[in-house]
Amino acid sequence: MNHRPGNQLFDAYFTARDMRDVFCDQGRVQAMLDFEAALARAEARVGLIPQSAVAPIEAACQAGHFDFVALGEAIATAGNSAIPLVKALGKQIASKDAEAERYVHLGATSQDVMDSGLVLQLRRALELIDGDLAQLGQTLASQAQRYVATPLAGRTWLQHATPVTLGMKIAGWLGSVTRSRQRLQELKPRLLVLQFGGASGTLAALGEQAMPIARALAEELQLSLPDQPWHTQRDRLVEFGSVLGLIAGSLGKLGRDISLLMQTEAGEVFEPSAPGKGGSSTMPHKRNPVGAAVLIGAATRVPGLLSTLFSAMPQEHERSLGLWHAEWETLPEICCLVSGSLKQALLVTQGLEVDAGRMARNLDLTQGLVLAEAVSIVLAQRVGRDTAHHLLEQCCKRAVAEQRHLRAVLGDEPQVTAELSAQELDHLLDPAHYLGQARTWVERAVAEHSALTA
Amino acid sequence: MNHRPGNQLFDAYFTARDMRDVFCDQGRVQAMLDFEAALARAEARVGLIPQSAVAPIEAACQAGHFDFVALGEAIATAGNSAIPLVKALGKQIASKDAEAERYVHLGATSQDVMDSGLVLQLRRALELIDGDLAQLGQTLASQAQRYVATPLAGRTWLQHATPVTLGMKIAGWLGSVTRSRQRLQELKPRLLVLQFGGASGTLAALGEQAMPIARALAEELQLSLPDQPWHTQRDRLVEFGSVLGLIAGSLGKLGRDISLLMQTEAGEVFEPSAPGKGGSSTMPHKRNPVGAAVLIGAATRVPGLLSTLFSAMPQEHERSLGLWHAEWETLPEICCLVSGSLKQALLVTQGLEVDAGRMARNLDLTQGLVLAEAVSIVLAQRVGRDTAHHLLEQCCKRAVAEQRHLRAVLGDEPQVTAELSAQELDHLLDPAHYLGQARTWVERAVAEHSALTA
Amino acid sequence: MNHRPGNQLFDAYFTARDMRDVFCDQGRVQAMLDFEAALARAEARVGLIPQSAVAPIEAACQAGHFDFVALGEAIATAGNSAIPLVKALGKQIASKDAEAERYVHLGATSQDVMDSGLVLQLRRALELIDGDLAQLGQTLASQAQRYVATPLAGRTWLQHATPVTLGMKIAGWLGSVTRSRQRLQELKPRLLVLQFGGASGTLAALGEQAMPIARALAEELQLSLPDQPWHTQRDRLVEFGSVLGLIAGSLGKLGRDISLLMQTEAGEVFEPSAPGKGGSSTMPHKRNPVGAAVLIGAATRVPGLLSTLFSAMPQEHERSLGLWHAEWETLPEICCLVSGSLKQALLVTQGLEVDAGRMARNLDLTQGLVLAEAVSIVLAQRVGRDTAHHLLEQCCKRAVAEQRHLRAVLGDEPQVTAELSAQELDHLLDPAHYLGQARTWVERAVAEHSALTA
Amino acid sequence: MNHRPGNQLFDAYFTARDMRDVFCDQGRVQAMLDFEAALARAEARVGLIPQSAVAPIEAACQAGHFDFVALGEAIATAGNSAIPLVKALGKQIASKDAEAERYVHLGATSQDVMDSGLVLQLRRALELIDGDLAQLGQTLASQAQRYVATPLAGRTWLQHATPVTLGMKIAGWLGSVTRSRQRLQELKPRLLVLQFGGASGTLAALGEQAMPIARALAEELQLSLPDQPWHTQRDRLVEFGSVLGLIAGSLGKLGRDISLLMQTEAGEVFEPSAPGKGGSSTMPHKRNPVGAAVLIGAATRVPGLLSTLFSAMPQEHERSLGLWHAEWETLPEICCLVSGSLKQALLVTQGLEVDAGRMARNLDLTQGLVLAEAVSIVLAQRVGRDTAHHLLEQCCKRAVAEQRHLRAVLGDEPQVTAELSAQELDHLLDPAHYLGQARTWVERAVAEHSALTA
Repeated sequence: MNHRPGNQLFDAYFTARDMRDVFCDQGRVQAMLDFEAALARAEARVGLIPQSAVAPIEAACQAGHFDFVALGEAIATAGNSAIPLVKALGKQIASKDAEAERYVHLGATSQDVMDSGLVLQLRRALELIDGDLAQLGQTLASQAQRYVATPLAGRTWLQHATPVTLGMKIAGWLGSVTRSRQRLQELKPRLLVLQFGGASGTLAALGEQAMPIARALAEELQLSLPDQPWHTQRDRLVEFGSVLGLIAGSLGKLGRDISLLMQTEAGEVFEPSAPGKGGSSTMPHKRNPVGAAVLIGAATRVPGLLSTLFSAMPQEHERSLGLWHAEWETLPEICCLVSGSLKQALLVTQGLEVDAGRMARNLDLTQGLVLAEAVSIVLAQRVGRDTAHHLLEQCCKRAVAEQRHLRAVLGDEPQVTAELSAQELDHLLDPAHYLGQARTWVERAVAEHSALTA
Repeated sequence: MNHRPGNQLFDAYFTARDMRDVFCDQGRVQAMLDFEAALARAEARVGLIPQSAVAPIEAACQAGHFDFVALGEAIATAGNSAIPLVKALGKQIASKDAEAERYVHLGATSQDVMDSGLVLQLRRALELIDGDLAQLGQTLASQAQRYVATPLAGRTWLQHATPVTLGMKIAGWLGSVTRSRQRLQELKPRLLVLQFGGASGTLAALGEQAMPIARALAEELQLSLPDQPWHTQRDRLVEFGSVLGLIAGSLGKLGRDISLLMQTEAGEVFEPSAPGKGGSSTMPHKRNPVGAAVLIGAATRVPGLLSTLFSAMPQEHERSLGLWHAEWETLPEICCLVSGSLKQALLVTQGLEVDAGRMARNLDLTQGLVLAEAVSIVLAQRVGRDTAHHLLEQCCKRAVAEQRHLRAVLGDEPQVTAELSAQELDHLLDPAHYLGQARTWVERAVAEHSALTA
Repeated sequence: MNHRPGNQLFDAYFTARDMRDVFCDQGRVQAMLDFEAALARAEARVGLIPQSAVAPIEAACQAGHFDFVALGEAIATAGNSAIPLVKALGKQIASKDAEAERYVHLGATSQDVMDSGLVLQLRRALELIDGDLAQLGQTLASQAQRYVATPLAGRTWLQHATPVTLGMKIAGWLGSVTRSRQRLQELKPRLLVLQFGGASGTLAALGEQAMPIARALAEELQLSLPDQPWHTQRDRLVEFGSVLGLIAGSLGKLGRDISLLMQTEAGEVFEPSAPGKGGSSTMPHKRNPVGAAVLIGAATRVPGLLSTLFSAMPQEHERSLGLWHAEWETLPEICCLVSGSLKQALLVTQGLEVDAGRMARNLDLTQGLVLAEAVSIVLAQRVGRDTAHHLLEQCCKRAVAEQRHLRAVLGDEPQVTAELSAQELDHLLDPAHYLGQARTWVERAVAEHSALTA
Repeated sequence: MNHRPGNQLFDAYFTARDMRDVFCDQGRVQAMLDFEAALARAEARVGLIPQSAVAPIEAACQAGHFDFVALGEAIATAGNSAIPLVKALGKQIASKDAEAERYVHLGATSQDVMDSGLVLQLRRALELIDGDLAQLGQTLASQAQRYVATPLAGRTWLQHATPVTLGMKIAGWLGSVTRSRQRLQELKPRLLVLQFGGASGTLAALGEQAMPIARALAEELQLSLPDQPWHTQRDRLVEFGSVLGLIAGSLGKLGRDISLLMQTEAGEVFEPSAPGKGGSSTMPHKRNPVGAAVLIGAATRVPGLLSTLFSAMPQEHERSLGLWHAEWETLPEICCLVSGSLKQALLVTQGLEVDAGRMARNLDLTQGLVLAEAVSIVLAQRVGRDTAHHLLEQCCKRAVAEQRHLRAVLGDEPQVTAELSAQELDHLLDPAHYLGQARTWVERAVAEHSALTA
């Protein structure tokens, strides 16, 4: 095979190997050849072509037989990948069985081959992603339960708010994974369909045998038969891209959270360490979030690629020029980026390192202010809501002004101590006692995950 | 109310009035107030606040009471719309019932109000869009059946290919509508959920009463209770945006097809005419596709807006700054653009004018070449596939070279006339006899539409 | 004037008033009317129309005369804003001077009016943005100089690295502002050009007078005369949008930096406080970065809007349908978002609150590790680079393992103390002595700023 | 070298070989090595490292020495490409000269290597694109002049309007090319700058020698020294991407025009034919616009990729994680797509086939209506504008209603024939006499092109 300069330096970092294999030249060509082989079988079953032609056609339908560089050059002239591939396939067959060559590709158009081949690739892609999502869901469910009672500062607008738990935060990540698994299930019937219409989509060249062949072909490929060919109705593909986009976005949120928690100033959660991983020879304290970078990177790149797919939907008449072409590399790129994001999410969450002590210390950075609400509520039950609110507001202001801990200020305030004992105050200022429904959220997210998996 | 310079010159053209009403300031504020009123009812039901506080709160929850300009200014300081609205609401209530004012907004955070209000708006938006889609589906089903046997040139790469029917083309538009209606049904359980979490999402301020209140509130608003608050898990919203994007794209394809068919050189299909509609005083022959322009315009704008929503997904911790803000105007804009696109699609397809005679004449522009395939197939059954193919290729080349009609060339070719009578040739060169499964495609698309509607 | 429900709740927060005024309905209509008035003057100068027609036309060209709601409805039928406006303008003129009405809009096409009007608006928008950029540059230059020697932790991958200065960080923000000011200057000759081509762009209807009128019109509007009409060559507009996108992105970086520095865990820099600004009644310690939210929000929204403009470039033949329409609201929206971002950037940077003490304390969070490099370099000059590097690596590891300060570990290490005195070690571990070219960077950025302003 | 499954099937079609070479793994690695070699030379010039170290370092800086697969795997752990490359480079050097190994990469950080390497690649990319643009400009200038007087229908909203010339249409394409060449010239000083800042951007590790080394390094690489390092100020790169986006959009317009003119119904202009090019064995009349497909495809893909670059601008502090990563493959992809678009634009325009006869026939499709304006104007000079306008309107309506040619209707109308002789009418209804400034537009566009080239 001829030499081609590669452009794959970042593949191992940004994408998963198994997904790259689906969409590499080999994978792409093999999927189209799988269509041609299945078409021959279907047409033989229906009696359009002789049964004897099937074996030679099938034998030739091996991607390994083809010169991808020559194919690439021919594509540049033909304007699509099917015309040169079918031509080369014909030569392959003819070299073994001249008669059989006459029966290849009958009644199909280039886009039938390319789109059905693509659907076969996307089926594999969907399986890979669904598998990884299931595994990620399992990991997150387990981690959410493990840290169900580990308090850390809730942060809104990047400012400390009332406490949450790490388990609840992880359960949030889990919820989005579960929902996207549901989405993948729901779109399958729309996505996993045959493309088969012939020149303009009517299958006219196959006459009366058209529908029997179409049905047999769908059966051979284990795809559904759609309402009609969808050469220029691309919503099926773009919907799949969108769900991948939702996954990329949800994992981006996970990555952003982790990168923020890993900040030197926070230091609460870390990606698992490994030799040489994100390290810096000159700064031994550094542990760069190299996994989170992939999650954020994918969440930054996929939206643009998706907007291309959406922009390419208004395809002209029975076959588009240009808009269809814009899909060819874009959807695979989305699949690959999401596969890489999932791989890194699995690595990061499976080996997540947690510093619960640092979380506790950080929770106290505001010297108790994040728990003022807790005190206020209990006090309200004793002295009325307005009085309680006013009192706490004063104490908080004093704590800030005097740079003292709220616990100390409250302990000095007779109106407070008249109602709340030192023990009660200690209790109220302990984040572990002001976690609300954090545990419930974990249980509910895990239940939804389990319901889907069962 | 203070004066604000409007920016609405293109609203009537690009959007639908009912959808604008959902998302106008009035609609936005009312939805948030609906949340506050429901919260009061829910908290009274559970016993957190006195029943007597409900009526005064409900009475104040009328958007008409509020000064939107003042609200807008306050938002610029507060950083969100809920803080100033709740403050103004408190004043409204207090002016009538000072006691009741103490019971408003208890346990809720700003984003609870904004997001739940948004979901109420989106529910209405979804109903509007679903209703329009159903009506559009009905129109397309009826038009597809009407033109089930009307042949026109199939066009691939904008070049004439074998004939199709207008019914089949319309059925293609219908299929995408049906699929998006399915999608809207499927996402409802994920979208129509309550947002209610309090400061950091734990509902801690409500203590033991948290879940009963949350359940009662969901019931009051007829929303589901999600696994947990989703303040920074935005996939629910972005999924809805994506399906709107698919609709915009599918309608864009419809608009592109119509604009191409309306070209002076094609003249096969026209948007309905109306006084002053797309006309030109200096050029009386012109009928501009002003509806298709909206469909194409929306299909061009929505992808960019959608990419913003996807880009805004990695929201930090328990409440984002900036990314959340990026959603506020973007999702409503998508809803409005899609509503306008649907409105125009209905106008265009309901009054579609069809020139079947021009379609027939255009089909003959290549002087029979688009039907060479039809002749070749029948001939193959008599003289063998290779001979037939070679023969037709020669005749086609001759027809092009001599600028004659293929029918004439074939009629002069003894090898052809030996096998095919003049009557047979006429039949084979009649597009109406080479439409393959065009009728089946219409039937299948209509059946899927009917199945959904039933 | 009729009532229209507004949608402006977030305008004051996200956009600047003066920019909204440029693009509001009033501004849009006035700009088109300014074109019509100038056209009348130009055509009178050349002698195509009587001088007496000019005054009545000019008098009618006041946006206040027109009913925008009626105009909006008419646009929905006409498919653009110029046809109904010119019709309404004709009526306005005719009501005062029937003769003059005959001389309005002669030789112009709708897009001439709309595009030239748009260019007039963009000229004003460019002035506003350029003015704000200049002011922002001035502010940043002054702040960079003020904090030229204020050390804080450099942060790479959100991890502490060697120290930088706040001045240098601000100078980085300044550099991007200066470059975008240069870009605005450079694109002016391409952007500020007349649109005037008549029906298909040839100005044929004006015969021999075409070029003199075009020149006079350009002069009247103080615009340049382009190589030819650019009805479907939209690069001029998209280029301007791109530079606005660069500004949005650069300000987004500024906003992101500030929001991160304002984190409760960092607390180094704050947006200026104001009554009610970003505060939380329940959490008095919170100061939400409400300005940074706008900067990040704009940087998230503008890229999607920009991709719409780029997507809309392949406009068909002499006038596009749909793609042109996609620009109408998109480019103004970009202008408005960038205006709001600039306004907030000015507020934030002018009143920036800096806690240099906290910066110093944070710099010590790693207990000296961020200065290991500084020690290593000096030591290398005495004991060789390899030995020094190895020694420091050991000491750093020990410091981490024993949770001690690097200064203490070094002070205990005989190989180190043999070479470096306690005083030298203190000096080396003082961030203020390891700031490299930080001051130079400030000087260079300020110099580039000043060079542009001069 | 290890095996990696390629993904390059569409490379030859969508991209140019010379541009792929710039950004392939080999190109990327070599550019980083060029930085390291230049750094060694610069540091030796300034005296930081011995002159004897330079040769061994330079000798090792050959991309061919490195295993890209191993490098790719190491990148996945390190999180960037520079760390593993520098490590591998060190080994390469050490294997020949252990002493020299100590002097590689001194004072530089990973991003210095990656970004400066990228700038070297972008300089080459810019040269390639500028060269192709100049050649395309030359071709378009020549074609515009060749067809300066070839009339065809002007088309607005895809409807026939008054005539234009093919030369003027081509001149429109030319104008956008000329403007983008100007833009590339203007951005060069901002783009072609050194990246060199060390760990946090201060160059502190180089002490007093920092600036001399930076200057020497910039000199070695023939780059400018920027105001300061721009590790997280990415506007320089995104600006370049934007101009590439403008080029893609402008070429997309060219491609769209050609694909529309090539329609079977129009048949006015064709891409050059070549054996097997865009042909269809079953439909010999088809000539698919395979070049235009690339132009439209690139114009559809680049906007999404660009929005990624803009979205990635708000990079945190001194080095971003995730946003920086999002650039690595995106900007090269834009360069490659634009290179392919340019290559195809050259092919298409150099060999453009023009059917002026068909243009003339198409111009008559409306039976003279597109020239009603021409008659009206001349008639107005004789009978007054209102009368003339009214008369023509009536005749046009009659022509449409009676399906007659406007010339015939006018010839039958006494009010017209009273003023205009048969000869005058023939003249007025000849498109060649109603081309306005079409020739001027060509001259102006060619002049601007020539001015730039000179």
